[in-house]
Amino acid sequence: MFRYKILIEYDGCRFHGWQRQDGVKTVQASIEDALCKMVKHETLVEGAGRTDAGVHATGQVGHFDLLKFYDCCRLLQGMNHYLRNSGVVIVDVKEVPLFFHARFSAINRTYNYCIANRQAPLALDHDRAWHVMLPLDVALMREAAQIFVGHHDFSAFRASACQSKTPHKTVTRFDIETAEDGQKIKAIIEARSFLHNQVRIMMGTLKLVGRGKLTPSDLKTILETGDRTLAGPTAPPHGLYLVDVGYKTGSNIDITQEGIHV
Amino acid sequence: MFRYKILIEYDGCRFHGWQRQDGVKTVQASIEDALCKMVKHETLVEGAGRTDAGVHATGQVGHFDLLKFYDCCRLLQGMNHYLRNSGVVIVDVKEVPLFFHARFSAINRTYNYCIANRQAPLALDHDRAWHVMLPLDVALMREAAQIFVGHHDFSAFRASACQSKTPHKTVTRFDIETAEDGQKIKAIIEARSFLHNQVRIMMGTLKLVGRGKLTPSDLKTILETGDRTLAGPTAPPHGLYLVDVGYKTGSNIDITQEGIHV
Repeated sequence: MFRYKILIEYDGCRFHGWQRQDGVKTVQASIEDALCKMVKHETLVEGAGRTDAGVHATGQVGHFDLLKFYDCCRLLQGMNHYLRNSGVVIVDVKEVPLFFHARFSAINRTYNYCIANRQAPLALDHDRAWHVMLPLDVALMREAAQIFVGHHDFSAFRASACQSKTPHKTVTRFDIETAEDGQKIKAIIEARSFLHNQVRIMMGTLKLVGRGKLTPSDLKTILETGDRTLAGPTAPPHGLYLVDVGYKTGSNIDITQEGIHV
Repeated sequence: MFRYKILIEYDGCRFHGWQRQDGVKTVQASIEDALCKMVKHETLVEGAGRTDAGVHATGQVGHFDLLKFYDCCRLLQGMNHYLRNSGVVIVDVKEVPLFFHARFSAINRTYNYCIANRQAPLALDHDRAWHVMLPLDVALMREAAQIFVGHHDFSAFRASACQSKTPHKTVTRFDIETAEDGQKIKAIIEARSFLHNQVRIMMGTLKLVGRGKLTPSDLKTILETGDRTLAGPTAPPHGLYLVDVGYKTGSNIDITQEGIHV
């Protein structure tokens, strides 16, 4: 048996999320179906993160096993052939040891969240960023974002459907960058793993800070009380991008040589 | 009579170019039709640059005259209401003196040209960048791009349909930036004005330099001979963005206060 790691990019607006579900187009099912057409047997594709409907990825990672050996370059081209115009693309393929697991070997996940902060609607980025019409105070949002960094009980920032055994997570980075006179706001958020909707609820709450509806100190209180009803609404999915999944050195022969950045 | 200057953003893939033409959807016609619905009389909208089908804009500028006074904020909201989901958005509206002309008062135009240089197809940017699969030598492209800077006869870099009286143009900037390990290449090109297809033919030729098919010195020879058949093919329209139009201080009261960057 041969195990392959794939780097995946997709336009989340064209899928009902990562996970295979009956009757709707999902990223996992699209890749599995393309692979099946190519290698002529059914194959499970495991993903590092089960992104929701509308969420994009430039650095999703998956793995699958094949019964016979395929050249990585041939796999890349073949899969992309069967995936053409589907909204998902395989960016890279590497053979990895059988102990590598896209989800369980991951030690780090990075998401970006993009906001377009201007009065006018978006002609080019309407499916690519959260459009916030009223002005946001980015300096306040940046200050508040630092409260999330560290090991915390994120109960106030998890979806009711969240299946994680524990609400404790460690956010290792929460930076906010701006471009074009503050009209483009990009948050870069890193953790080993996240609760369901955690990034989107954190962003929905930070937006209230940016609008002056909550202070950074309110946000600290919300984090401490763990009350979901006090936090902001879940920010829309189409501003969110899974951009990177990190693995331990040695868990993947090729990763140590080349990194996994797209 | 009241004259208004508008800042316009559009997704070029949804239009047959700027200029009104019978039977097809164009940016100019879309804006004129929206304006007519709002102010109840026909109005000509003049644009700073007549972009071709597929070419995007984040900083196109236009002007038009209205018979009675409208508040700028109301105009912005009203026009965007009638333009909703059309692929074009009015980003800003300012009242300007009657001597302001979007096209003839312009003293500077800036285009960006985006290339995605990687083997895999593009899931997120397929309508937003030129996908070049084989690796490009950006350092060589950068060196060659400098040959375009200055006052030259650009006969080798104009479309056969070009109606400009003279092939002489002055390119004042031709920078090439990269991001994501060179996978994203962005050229920033500035001139008072350009010949028809000039930017796209320059980019198509620079791509041949990046592939090693032409040297920077070949490009210099092509520029000197003025022979269109020696230059590269016209690069695709969907990598091109009109990002800025500059005006003389004083040609527009508001411009001097706020600039026109999106």
